[in-house]
Amino acid sequence: MTSTKINRAAFVIARCREIAGFTEVSGETTRFFLTQSMHAVHALLRRWSEGIGMTVHVDAAGNLRAFWPGSSPKSPRLIIGSHLDTVPNAGAFDGTLGVVLGISIVEQLRGKHLPFAIEVIGFSEEEGVRFNKPFLGSLAVVGKLDAEILALKDCDSISVSEAIRAFGLDPAQIPEAILSEEAFAYLELHIEQGPVLESEETPLAVVEALVGQTRMQLTFSGQTNHAGTTPMHLRHDALAAAAEWVVSVEQYAGSYNGLVATVGKIEVSPSAGNVIAGHVPASLDVRHANDEIRKLAVATLQQSAEQAAAKRGVRVTAFSQLDQSAVPLDLRLAAILQEAATRAGITSRRMVSGAGHDAMILAPYVPSAMLFLRSPGGLSHHPDETVLSTDVEAALATAMEFLELLRGDIAIPKEHHA
Amino acid sequence: MTSTKINRAAFVIARCREIAGFTEVSGETTRFFLTQSMHAVHALLRRWSEGIGMTVHVDAAGNLRAFWPGSSPKSPRLIIGSHLDTVPNAGAFDGTLGVVLGISIVEQLRGKHLPFAIEVIGFSEEEGVRFNKPFLGSLAVVGKLDAEILALKDCDSISVSEAIRAFGLDPAQIPEAILSEEAFAYLELHIEQGPVLESEETPLAVVEALVGQTRMQLTFSGQTNHAGTTPMHLRHDALAAAAEWVVSVEQYAGSYNGLVATVGKIEVSPSAGNVIAGHVPASLDVRHANDEIRKLAVATLQQSAEQAAAKRGVRVTAFSQLDQSAVPLDLRLAAILQEAATRAGITSRRMVSGAGHDAMILAPYVPSAMLFLRSPGGLSHHPDETVLSTDVEAALATAMEFLELLRGDIAIPKEHHA
Repeated sequence: MTSTKINRAAFVIARCREIAGFTEVSGETTRFFLTQSMHAVHALLRRWSEGIGMTVHVDAAGNLRAFWPGSSPKSPRLIIGSHLDTVPNAGAFDGTLGVVLGISIVEQLRGKHLPFAIEVIGFSEEEGVRFNKPFLGSLAVVGKLDAEILALKDCDSISVSEAIRAFGLDPAQIPEAILSEEAFAYLELHIEQGPVLESEETPLAVVEALVGQTRMQLTFSGQTNHAGTTPMHLRHDALAAAAEWVVSVEQYAGSYNGLVATVGKIEVSPSAGNVIAGHVPASLDVRHANDEIRKLAVATLQQSAEQAAAKRGVRVTAFSQLDQSAVPLDLRLAAILQEAATRAGITSRRMVSGAGHDAMILAPYVPSAMLFLRSPGGLSHHPDETVLSTDVEAALATAMEFLELLRGDIAIPKEHHA
Repeated sequence: MTSTKINRAAFVIARCREIAGFTEVSGETTRFFLTQSMHAVHALLRRWSEGIGMTVHVDAAGNLRAFWPGSSPKSPRLIIGSHLDTVPNAGAFDGTLGVVLGISIVEQLRGKHLPFAIEVIGFSEEEGVRFNKPFLGSLAVVGKLDAEILALKDCDSISVSEAIRAFGLDPAQIPEAILSEEAFAYLELHIEQGPVLESEETPLAVVEALVGQTRMQLTFSGQTNHAGTTPMHLRHDALAAAAEWVVSVEQYAGSYNGLVATVGKIEVSPSAGNVIAGHVPASLDVRHANDEIRKLAVATLQQSAEQAAAKRGVRVTAFSQLDQSAVPLDLRLAAILQEAATRAGITSRRMVSGAGHDAMILAPYVPSAMLFLRSPGGLSHHPDETVLSTDVEAALATAMEFLELLRGDIAIPKEHHA
């Protein structure tokens, strides 16, 4: 790799770290939807984008839209995007990297116009922190930021509409945020936020699908009793029942390729060392790219809970909190993206995303592709979140080859694509 | 059973319920060490005791001492006792029943003097609520209410000494509370506070020993991670490790007769449904009448924890909070007590107490015996705690036969007892 190429990657990383300096909480990076620090981020990105000849505006949902025209006014449009909001005390790369890379990709064209336009979108909201609902930015772009969502309130009782106005925007103009009819593809570059690429020493992954997810709460109800005077055979220990089930959740998920199932939360009542637990609510999170496999897992794990409870004279109730289908990405775009990586001399693998991303919202409306960059230590949503400059260069090189391949691809009339 | 006998049991129960009316918190029974409501309880017990010819005083530790002389001034002395303090929102029988029964036993003598005196003690403190240390009343009686304990403070920063003075007593006179040298036996009648007698349809149990107890905290430390992006084989799930261990604790204890082991408290950090648990502290409570079996259990369960942790790349640390030896009661007195039950026509079984009682403190100083009465529903430390009147009558009848057998027993010179 030439020193020029290492430099352009270092430059992308430096820009992400500069953006991370804009925060609502000093000493950390905490930047929610439509907060004051987002104005400064927009100003910076606008300066960088306009500096390379892009035209920039912020839509009524607070999304930054930077446009690089194609070779003709009616050119089809490639969308490159990710989000600019963060979780509390975040790292510098989750979301931001994809936006900065979008601008860098256009910068690499050095003023050249392609047979297609490029629109880089910095989505205003993906993490769901401020209004306890994620994807507000991308929902606006697909026309789904409806009245119900606009009425949601944050912890200061400010509604989404009010927040939009307070940011200097007009909620009445939200329909104008909808994706151009010329859009023919969406590309999102994002850190993996997991340990898979690092564990396999692979810099990049082409995402095939975003997993479906079930969230449930199961509650084990036994009988509180004295830990000293109640013999083992006369107990109805809700925690022992829950514990047997937690182990069965781990075992079952481990036996299915690509399945993850997690009990991340357990509360014990009355929670005293010398009292047998009477009441134990527990969370269940199940994810898989195949909805049938996920649903079978959920049904099986509910049965396991009932068995673990029944043998102890414990009752179990379950209620579902989320049942979200998997979102497949565009297989043809995925193939082109992987071919682009190969042409750039980069090893990549296919992967399923275990987390949600803006691509999930865009995919039903426009053929979508995602490229993951390795996450050192698998770390994300943490100030130490980072990315390797060699991987950033690999992603940039892959993206440039992807543009080349798309050039050839859109030259083929659409009816030949079936 | 004659209606007279049913009446005397009903009378005992009514007296317990009358005492339960004296409380610091209206609408429930909450009566801690040396609180104002204890004065009223003492006044009532004094009236009942003096009414049958006993002499009564309250010692400097707040214990009520009611004395019924033997047939000679130098008669040996049988102690019958239990405690008068309660847990918060208690039932009417834990402790109180043993004191009320002590007075009723003397009442059944109808003025007759035996070759031994009887002293009924209503211990002032057993539950350990006010000063976070149990057995203050019985510790005074065995000469162990020392300066360190007298300096303990309650949640209002009042020391034990100050509480004694505020109750109208003089801490300097505590040495006078020590048990008479004439004491030859201690008898405590107490509700079982567990489900064993009820499950075997047996009214009474003769207690052979009070279990030893280990309390520990084990902390499982894994790695917090994203529940969606971390494949099962790359996890270090602290909750899964703890859960496997909880199941092994239950299994191991169930395989040893008389062993109880409980995990009653687990805390999960960070405790979110979509985050793999990184840090899980858990309690362990192990009890058995044989200290070797208990120590083997603790060592084995620590190994189980290490195995469950190691296979997940999780670390576990353990620290001991309590390691209390078992207290055997007097086997000869136990045999006499069981023979007394048989003579009274009552079915009884031998039993080990899983909870602590004043007899634990007395036993090293004077041969001690305990009689348990069945606890309906196994319920105790609860307003619904109760006792069957037929079981109270069975305990009274057994106690009267016990006095008869002791009469014959103390006639035999002591050196023949070995």
